Amino acid sequence: MVDSNEIRELLPEFPAGPLDEFRGKASFDWRKLKLFLEPKDVILYKKRFVEALKTDPIFNEEETQHDEIRRISAHKIRRMNEIPEFHADFSGNLLKLGVFPEVLNLADPSNLVTFMVNRNLYTSAVEGLGTEKHQHLVKAIEESKNFGCFCMTEIGHGSDTKRLKTKATYDAKRRGFVLETPDFEAAKCWSGLLGQLATHAVVYAQLYTPDGCCHGFHQFVVQIRDERTLLPMSGIVVGDMGVKIGLNGVDNGYLLFDKYFVGKEALLNRYADVTDDGEYVVLVEDPKRMFGAALATLSEGRLKIISLCTAFLIKAVTIAVRYAAVRKQFGPSNQEEISIIEYQTHQHRLLPYLSAAFVYKVFSAQILRKHASECSHPGYGYEIHAISSAAKPVASWFLMEALNECRQACAGHGYLKSAELGDLRNDADANCTYEGENHVLNQQTSNFLLKIWPKVLKGEHIDFPLESINFLSDIQTIMNFRVNFNSYEEFIHPRHIIDMYRWLTVHLLKASYDKYEASMEKTKDAFLSKNDNQVYFSRRLTIIYINHYILQTFQREMSSITDENVHEVMRKVFALYALFVLEKHIGFLYSGGLFVGGEPGTLLRDSILRLCHDLKDDAVTLVDTIAPDDYLINSFMGKSDGKVYEHLQKQLPVPNARPTWWRELLTPSQSKL
Amino acid sequence: MVDSNEIRELLPEFPAGPLDEFRGKASFDWRKLKLFLEPKDVILYKKRFVEALKTDPIFNEEETQHDEIRRISAHKIRRMNEIPEFHADFSGNLLKLGVFPEVLNLADPSNLVTFMVNRNLYTSAVEGLGTEKHQHLVKAIEESKNFGCFCMTEIGHGSDTKRLKTKATYDAKRRGFVLETPDFEAAKCWSGLLGQLATHAVVYAQLYTPDGCCHGFHQFVVQIRDERTLLPMSGIVVGDMGVKIGLNGVDNGYLLFDKYFVGKEALLNRYADVTDDGEYVVLVEDPKRMFGAALATLSEGRLKIISLCTAFLIKAVTIAVRYAAVRKQFGPSNQEEISIIEYQTHQHRLLPYLSAAFVYKVFSAQILRKHASECSHPGYGYEIHAISSAAKPVASWFLMEALNECRQACAGHGYLKSAELGDLRNDADANCTYEGENHVLNQQTSNFLLKIWPKVLKGEHIDFPLESINFLSDIQTIMNFRVNFNSYEEFIHPRHIIDMYRWLTVHLLKASYDKYEASMEKTKDAFLSKNDNQVYFSRRLTIIYINHYILQTFQREMSSITDENVHEVMRKVFALYALFVLEKHIGFLYSGGLFVGGEPGTLLRDSILRLCHDLKDDAVTLVDTIAPDDYLINSFMGKSDGKVYEHLQKQLPVPNARPTWWRELLTPSQSKL
Repeated sequence: MVDSNEIRELLPEFPAGPLDEFRGKASFDWRKLKLFLEPKDVILYKKRFVEALKTDPIFNEEETQHDEIRRISAHKIRRMNEIPEFHADFSGNLLKLGVFPEVLNLADPSNLVTFMVNRNLYTSAVEGLGTEKHQHLVKAIEESKNFGCFCMTEIGHGSDTKRLKTKATYDAKRRGFVLETPDFEAAKCWSGLLGQLATHAVVYAQLYTPDGCCHGFHQFVVQIRDERTLLPMSGIVVGDMGVKIGLNGVDNGYLLFDKYFVGKEALLNRYADVTDDGEYVVLVEDPKRMFGAALATLSEGRLKIISLCTAFLIKAVTIAVRYAAVRKQFGPSNQEEISIIEYQTHQHRLLPYLSAAFVYKVFSAQILRKHASECSHPGYGYEIHAISSAAKPVASWFLMEALNECRQACAGHGYLKSAELGDLRNDADANCTYEGENHVLNQQTSNFLLKIWPKVLKGEHIDFPLESINFLSDIQTIMNFRVNFNSYEEFIHPRHIIDMYRWLTVHLLKASYDKYEASMEKTKDAFLSKNDNQVYFSRRLTIIYINHYILQTFQREMSSITDENVHEVMRKVFALYALFVLEKHIGFLYSGGLFVGGEPGTLLRDSILRLCHDLKDDAVTLVDTIAPDDYLINSFMGKSDGKVYEHLQKQLPVPNARPTWWRELLTPSQSKL
Repeated sequence: MVDSNEIRELLPEFPAGPLDEFRGKASFDWRKLKLFLEPKDVILYKKRFVEALKTDPIFNEEETQHDEIRRISAHKIRRMNEIPEFHADFSGNLLKLGVFPEVLNLADPSNLVTFMVNRNLYTSAVEGLGTEKHQHLVKAIEESKNFGCFCMTEIGHGSDTKRLKTKATYDAKRRGFVLETPDFEAAKCWSGLLGQLATHAVVYAQLYTPDGCCHGFHQFVVQIRDERTLLPMSGIVVGDMGVKIGLNGVDNGYLLFDKYFVGKEALLNRYADVTDDGEYVVLVEDPKRMFGAALATLSEGRLKIISLCTAFLIKAVTIAVRYAAVRKQFGPSNQEEISIIEYQTHQHRLLPYLSAAFVYKVFSAQILRKHASECSHPGYGYEIHAISSAAKPVASWFLMEALNECRQACAGHGYLKSAELGDLRNDADANCTYEGENHVLNQQTSNFLLKIWPKVLKGEHIDFPLESINFLSDIQTIMNFRVNFNSYEEFIHPRHIIDMYRWLTVHLLKASYDKYEASMEKTKDAFLSKNDNQVYFSRRLTIIYINHYILQTFQREMSSITDENVHEVMRKVFALYALFVLEKHIGFLYSGGLFVGGEPGTLLRDSILRLCHDLKDDAVTLVDTIAPDDYLINSFMGKSDGKVYEHLQKQLPVPNARPTWWRELLTPSQSKL
């Protein structure tokens, strides 16, 4: 334990201001909750990291134009190798693994994406799929001698990787591969760093041996630009994708090969190779196990996205909740104005998202921790694939919903760019699409669940290492569950909430499976039958399945909280998020027969409103507990001192200035500017 | 009627391309549907208007930087007075009144906002609230000699206009008013054109007579900048709000008065005045009637926003539907890839929004027409206030939902700025906030409805001119309505759909009123009781009330369609939008007892999916019918020729170019850039 003086030094008071009144109303000690969420070394590491960014000129350049954004972004990529916090020892504490992307993501989301492409995507592919001879490439990245990118997606194919059209044909005479882009639709695209910086690329291409046989897609590592001139190699056509909705610091690019020859060593040959004469050789004994491992690797990117979404969510609710406490408007007849957080509508707009921020914070840290410790377990690859393919969509969709609500809840002043909610939304939006389009990913999870159902019916024991779906072993208890309680206290009890989620998972899984079976009888085609089954069942199923798992994880962690007040407020947070999500699926609770008559619906709605009301006085302090440093908030509305109007006044463009072009307006209109 | 050669000349074929296949599948003649939606003169006017914009260099400048956006925007404001289409005679055809903002809104949303501020908001205030002596100011606007803005909102007060703090104190000696901004929170803000251009402003201020009496807020028209120098008058502090999430062509500004003296004629004195000696005089006999008229005036801005939202919605679904037809991904085992619009998920993602585009298009035109013809009817002011206060929120929220879905449905390529969906969302976002924050407006509508309910209970006849709520006169029939049908055909019948909406309106109104009454008994305060009642009841009530009215309007118009195929497809469009919205409120259909057991829920969901499936082959042609000109679509993904990849290839930045700053990357990292 940490003693109380030390704690106060570690977590000092927030600056005084209009938020003090709300801080005084909190029912719990925020420092205790903070230390439950983040151990001391994480807090210290985060402080050091923020300080390093705050004091580094390269991370504090003002960016305005597209080209300038890119220039600074390029400098940041190199600088990252020079800041000690980028090399912190992550092995001891896995929470740090989450802290690093959290901080960088808030400081500059583009910067984090480029870092992840260069240092994770490219490097892991070379390390994981290559052999001894490829390892010098990793070192060159770490020394900023090379920049790497990862080229899978093509203009015409993103999700359906089997239909990628880039060709790599082995030429035995020259002992190497000829890379060829047959048409524009086969051009590689969207790869980060490809647009301007990358010197090397990991490229997915269909491998053809000289006998004309296609062996499916393989990965090649190829040099695309000269390191000293940054000019493309001959045979390479490479360019930038252009301006995007957000993340403009990332130089996403496109790439075409014009019979580009690379030596044989370009093939990342850990699992398969081509002999000098052009014979294809498989080097791995158990392809199924390899597939499981591949799934687990793909999952890692998605798990990290959950952390990124959580960091954005925390930032957004921090801004919106602090503003809601400071902003006053209307009031009871002839009385003083009241803070807008006092309004039921406003509580309902924000507090479910605030609750979600805690739930996702705990879940995203836990799942990364489990990923590091349990990934060797059999069955792990399939389960983590199902979890990440549901959790990344749920987290990114929920974030978009939260960002829209927070932006609107901050009304007029929230529409200023400097409120930060617009850029956040524009950047966050990409999470719904990259590392697997959300709807396509959902289908992966529902396929996993549909395969389990027949086993459940046969009474088989369901045993996966992450325990996301093992409760199906006890199917009878779940199906016999009834809502026979009618008080608020019973309704919000974690046990009952978990039971409702389990019941709904089973209901949707059964309905989904039955619909799939019926469709199979008609169409005799699994693809068409799954398609027929998507909207209401499979999609809702994956959402409920993963939310159950998220809540189960949170509940287990919560049970270790010893402080009564902290525990109580976390129970409310748990219940509010859980019931808020459940209410969106109320139609299935009714049509499936768990809810009957007016009472349970009313109880559900009243419970949500009561939780909102009961959490209202804790809202500012909850936000204080998880809020990023003011430097990372970077919004005049969301700072910890709550002085919204003072910050706004200071940042407004100077008054009484004319635009430079004011004279143009006094001359008659011209046909051309 | 128009003969068929003439029709083909008026509405030529679309350019050939990958969309032809889908166009061939349509079940109806798009030209017939087009002429139902837009008469010939509207189509011709729109063509001329688009042509004028397309060929005018000022409307085709490339904008990149903030200051440049502003410069071009300022030129556009002046140019608008020189283009004949801006002066089209709108009196003959009210649809034109909708066409003008529709076209301009798509060409440049900022441009439309500045036009509306300058030519509508400022001018109508001067015309409507002023007297003879103020009319020369209107002429000066039309001749681009002045630019006008409208200053109501203050930094600390937006929605609660009664608490505005700007003061206008009459000084009898100098025969004028001293305008004073007591502190920064009282600074006027967010007014369009105030930031850089406005020479004049209509200002809301609390009027104080020399006896120290405050007579509430009044409007003053004051000069704030010199027309020849664009410098602020002495005593004025005026500046720009800074960069925003969207609409950056609008120079929103802030304004503080430092004991700024204006002559007595600054008071817009149609309804009240101050004598030379400083006595306050009311000039109007029936203040209640005046209040009704004021409500109707405020409504007009909101009704126009519905048209703007509709134009954005049409643009978004045009882009997303055309791309969904062109984009192919996956397919049944061993068969060719299929268009993503063939997937149930994708149909469900887009077709409800496509349907909504038709429903809103018809509604927004009709409500503007009614507004022009019936506004003298007693009770009109209150009803149109209730309608506009519910319809503007519903339209703007639905649009944001649609834009998020369309953006994501266009996946990776949809994240390019040139896809246009990002800017659309950033601009559209403001609709949720200006002309009344959506949640605050909703409360206005629910107040209107809550006042009617006791009359319904007393058996009074409910008679409002727009017939939005008159069905309450027949309360018994509605309350006795039961879902005793179980086929798809019956379920999607317009009569039954309208009945379900009426039942739900009554259910929510009754529940809302009961909760309000119960709360009143406890709190004895109407303000607090209404607040207590907001989230589930009042808000849902206003959504269902207004959707019923929108659907009723659409259904009545639809009945005039004589062509069987066109009528059939519009029936599907009607049902899909209606059921899609209804499904979001399914919890209340169950908890209120209209739905019992699994069957109606299943029928509702299956009907939605079947409608999606049945509309899928018509989707491209439906979009063709309402799509804006390719110039206005301005997106590589949404053009009428469907050549997505060709347009993408053409617009990509040139390959093999280095950034200008490439050398910086080869030298060691510097501490300062």
